[in-house]
Amino acid sequence: MDQDTQRDVLRRLSYAEGHLAGIRKMVEQDTYCVDVLKQTYAVRRAIAKLEQKLLEGHLHHCVVEGVQRGDAAVLDELAELYALANR
Amino acid sequence: MDQDTQRDVLRRLSYAEGHLAGIRKMVEQDTYCVDVLKQTYAVRRAIAKLEQKLLEGHLHHCVVEGVQRGDAAVLDELAELYALANR
Amino acid sequence: MDQDTQRDVLRRLSYAEGHLAGIRKMVEQDTYCVDVLKQTYAVRRAIAKLEQKLLEGHLHHCVVEGVQRGDAAVLDELAELYALANR
Amino acid sequence: MDQDTQRDVLRRLSYAEGHLAGIRKMVEQDTYCVDVLKQTYAVRRAIAKLEQKLLEGHLHHCVVEGVQRGDAAVLDELAELYALANR
Repeated sequence: MDQDTQRDVLRRLSYAEGHLAGIRKMVEQDTYCVDVLKQTYAVRRAIAKLEQKLLEGHLHHCVVEGVQRGDAAVLDELAELYALANR
Repeated sequence: MDQDTQRDVLRRLSYAEGHLAGIRKMVEQDTYCVDVLKQTYAVRRAIAKLEQKLLEGHLHHCVVEGVQRGDAAVLDELAELYALANR
Repeated sequence: MDQDTQRDVLRRLSYAEGHLAGIRKMVEQDTYCVDVLKQTYAVRRAIAKLEQKLLEGHLHHCVVEGVQRGDAAVLDELAELYALANR
Repeated sequence: MDQDTQRDVLRRLSYAEGHLAGIRKMVEQDTYCVDVLKQTYAVRRAIAKLEQKLLEGHLHHCVVEGVQRGDAAVLDELAELYALANR
């Protein structure tokens, strides 16, 4: 992973952790469920965005290198990732 | 697209069309909404499965060829597909 | 289901069937996979929108009536629908 | 929210936070992207499951009470949650 992607992903992960901790506090304080749910959806979206960053880095580095050295496994992994993400 | 994938995808598309036509009949006959919704979910899952087949064919053909001739566009397209599928 | 919802849902279902038939033609003519996939995503989104219409009608009719006559099954069904849609 | 649901949801939130912290360590140690992505998918699924628990509690408490006192807002909120979750 290149350094820019890594730094960006780490920043997003810290942010998502903080967001979850905030949601935990909301639940402890018995916040209205609908408001809690809107926040958990927001965290899930933030994680999906971070996955997009990871995937873009992966495509332009590992996948290119894998294909160039004739490694088909890298493509099977991609297919599996799509299947998992799209379930 | 290789012939096996094409045939498989066409078969799945016909099936999904038939399924939608069946759901249309259910709605015309005023079937209970929950039963209609379970069927529309099933169609969406069937389409997602067909997309997986298309994607696997795409990865092992167009993507390999694209990367081998140094075409980065094929990777940007993949990232875009992932983003669209995962929205 | 009230008549407006029914008409709207039927119109959307016909449209989705036509869209799938168009995608079938694309696959028959060996259209580039990425372009086919963008269309199948669009159909899935259209079906999700139609589900939203069905659900709104369901909530304001069957669910209200179910709750008022003390029928908890209507709530279990809703929970199940969310789980199915969110898988 | 009843106490059992609250305790269960809090436990799941703590677990998801710990999982994200673990993923952050994976990224810091430059773990292979595909392995990181599989873990972020798992966290998203865990959050979706926790949402399901929240929603079930919400349906059987707030929604029942809302409908019984003739509050339609509770149904509009449900439709909105469905739309958000299904985007």
